Amino acid sequence: MKSTELTAKYENKEELEMLAKMLENVRNTTPLVHNITNYVTVNDCANALLACGGSPIMADDVEDAKDITAICTSLNINIGTLNKNTIPAMLEAGKIADSLGHPIILDPVGAGASKLRTETAKTLIENIHFSVIRGNISEIKALALGEGNTKGVDADVADAVTEETLPNVVKFAKDFSDKTGAVIAITGAIDIIADSNKAYLIRNGHPMMSKITGTGCMLSAITGAYIGANQENILEATAAAVCVMGLCGERAYKRLNANDGNSTYRNYIIDEIYNLNGEKLKEGAKFEIV
Amino acid sequence: MKSTELTAKYENKEELEMLAKMLENVRNTTPLVHNITNYVTVNDCANALLACGGSPIMADDVEDAKDITAICTSLNINIGTLNKNTIPAMLEAGKIADSLGHPIILDPVGAGASKLRTETAKTLIENIHFSVIRGNISEIKALALGEGNTKGVDADVADAVTEETLPNVVKFAKDFSDKTGAVIAITGAIDIIADSNKAYLIRNGHPMMSKITGTGCMLSAITGAYIGANQENILEATAAAVCVMGLCGERAYKRLNANDGNSTYRNYIIDEIYNLNGEKLKEGAKFEIV
Amino acid sequence: MKSTELTAKYENKEELEMLAKMLENVRNTTPLVHNITNYVTVNDCANALLACGGSPIMADDVEDAKDITAICTSLNINIGTLNKNTIPAMLEAGKIADSLGHPIILDPVGAGASKLRTETAKTLIENIHFSVIRGNISEIKALALGEGNTKGVDADVADAVTEETLPNVVKFAKDFSDKTGAVIAITGAIDIIADSNKAYLIRNGHPMMSKITGTGCMLSAITGAYIGANQENILEATAAAVCVMGLCGERAYKRLNANDGNSTYRNYIIDEIYNLNGEKLKEGAKFEIV
Repeated sequence: MKSTELTAKYENKEELEMLAKMLENVRNTTPLVHNITNYVTVNDCANALLACGGSPIMADDVEDAKDITAICTSLNINIGTLNKNTIPAMLEAGKIADSLGHPIILDPVGAGASKLRTETAKTLIENIHFSVIRGNISEIKALALGEGNTKGVDADVADAVTEETLPNVVKFAKDFSDKTGAVIAITGAIDIIADSNKAYLIRNGHPMMSKITGTGCMLSAITGAYIGANQENILEATAAAVCVMGLCGERAYKRLNANDGNSTYRNYIIDEIYNLNGEKLKEGAKFEIV
Repeated sequence: MKSTELTAKYENKEELEMLAKMLENVRNTTPLVHNITNYVTVNDCANALLACGGSPIMADDVEDAKDITAICTSLNINIGTLNKNTIPAMLEAGKIADSLGHPIILDPVGAGASKLRTETAKTLIENIHFSVIRGNISEIKALALGEGNTKGVDADVADAVTEETLPNVVKFAKDFSDKTGAVIAITGAIDIIADSNKAYLIRNGHPMMSKITGTGCMLSAITGAYIGANQENILEATAAAVCVMGLCGERAYKRLNANDGNSTYRNYIIDEIYNLNGEKLKEGAKFEIV
Repeated sequence: MKSTELTAKYENKEELEMLAKMLENVRNTTPLVHNITNYVTVNDCANALLACGGSPIMADDVEDAKDITAICTSLNINIGTLNKNTIPAMLEAGKIADSLGHPIILDPVGAGASKLRTETAKTLIENIHFSVIRGNISEIKALALGEGNTKGVDADVADAVTEETLPNVVKFAKDFSDKTGAVIAITGAIDIIADSNKAYLIRNGHPMMSKITGTGCMLSAITGAYIGANQENILEATAAAVCVMGLCGERAYKRLNANDGNSTYRNYIIDEIYNLNGEKLKEGAKFEIV
């Protein structure tokens, strides 16, 4: 931790207990999460949801999605392979989940990379009250600032969050939260989870996670479970989910041997989510609050 | 086995030989199975089909599905992520497969959880002669009794099959088989595989299988291969497939170490299906006939 | 190597260096590959692309695909689960990628097995300049000769490439390359990678690769990265990708223990792609040029 402007609170016992409680609430209540998500990483999202203690259901036809979302605890909308059939399902399911008071998370995959993605994400935000919007810095900037320099589904290098830019990014996230009413989760090497007043800076994770497809999608899916089980603590629940994903990335990395690569790493990350408990989370979470 | 009303026949050598023969017929004939299935678990279904000795093909556009089903041995219809484009493909492929005398299995994922799922499953049953209908107790009850209390894609607790309710569930399955002409496979902690006269009660499996997405879908897919290779013995072929899946769940569980979780477990289950042979099946099958 | 008509050049040092250079160019430039592919194997394709050093993005709605393909390096079109919504996306993305000079690969999965697949593949070839067309012998014959005896997604036995038929198949591949302007990659026990003048015969691989769904799809995806990073050497780039996939199949097979099956094998193949470098490729590549 080099930045002197940020106060480290890694040892804040109360905060650690809170994160652990978020995890345990998921395991104790098995929230049913409705996912309208992409077909690239959907299987990993389902297994990650089961691993963390939630229960997944996928439904993306507009008629089906309306009924399914009503029996769920929360809704996860991921635009990774959006199309003209699933966009109306996202909107309708979102409106119904909203009217039922369900927490809803948006993962604007590739916002900024195509007009359809950027405009769909914006339309969703205009019509649905999201509890959480989670993306990389390029995606969130595309939504907040109208810029479009996203490189595919990964953050553009020009947007990189560094120790130097961190204070500005925190302010940007708090402002965008203030504007949207959603907790903003900007994930990358350093994760910023902010509402309009408070931000968690999380330093869990491992660079090799970027060599697996779907770590972001899996994080959004398990965040869906965390906010479903912790509806009064959306910010803390989101921060807990982000710590969980990053910590499991670290723990899984330690299991790898010289012959293992990204496929085994993917399996081990989901395995770690399956085996994580509150005690391990308290030991491994690396965060501060600003 | 506590129920005194049910006669245990675990040691029935003739039945064990029959199950082993079902397995070997799959390995010897490599049935090509057309799957119209959900995008959540489709990759695992394809690998499970290859593992058991079958060959998978997926086609869900109505024009494509009609041609593809004609060159296959059997058809597996799974409504897990049904939509307005795939429902007509299910109907048309089903009618063609039916007219060609192909065995067809229905997996009514989430029937009872949404109107679209329940009605689609009913429409399919009205228009296609299924050889097998396989689901959890909540899904099968939704189809047979018109009730709708399915909790997502898992069985509702109120529907749980216990030793006490087992005789009633067996009668229910036999009656629904009589009505539909299909073998009814109700899977859960205890599996009931019934035609109108005879039922297998199967006690293979492991509770951790419910922590993987797609064990039910994989079972339906491999049942597609088993009924394709054993068209004169649909009941026995289905019972064999159910034993295989459960036994592989048991065997895979024994391979797990303390760090493994549901993702590794998924891989090991498919691996066990790949390595299973008639001898292992005869040693491990746990069933009785009522 | 039994055929006396073919000259072995396994020790051609210049060719080996060229293949290794193809690999290193991928790792050094991280080509972004747009994939319009099937939902069965898409996750493995994405992880294989990341493993080889590329970056995947999937977009199959026609509006989205047009924008996404423009920001990519190359395009991979796989018709494995084509439908009426994705076919226009294939055509439009192909035309745009073509106009931008992006290398494009076609994987005509199941051509010959259904009218829709055969006709779609032909329409794509008529309207788009493909750099590479990769399929099994049955699929390529269906496109070149108009025959239709493909058995599902696997090559028909009648079409098997043997030492005896190899010279004829090489001539066929060269002729079809001459007609289409694309490098033709016919993969199977022996792989033939040909332009109109030169063919690589590649003998890497392991028979167990046919027990995994998606080895062909993964190969097409990583070929997309290889041709993206080596636009001046499409033939050599394709040959390198084919050697990589086969060699990783061999190396992964050696890691298997007695309890492992096709699911672990799939993971190990992707792991091997992740860990492969130019040195290992030069040691393991088995090919000759005719």
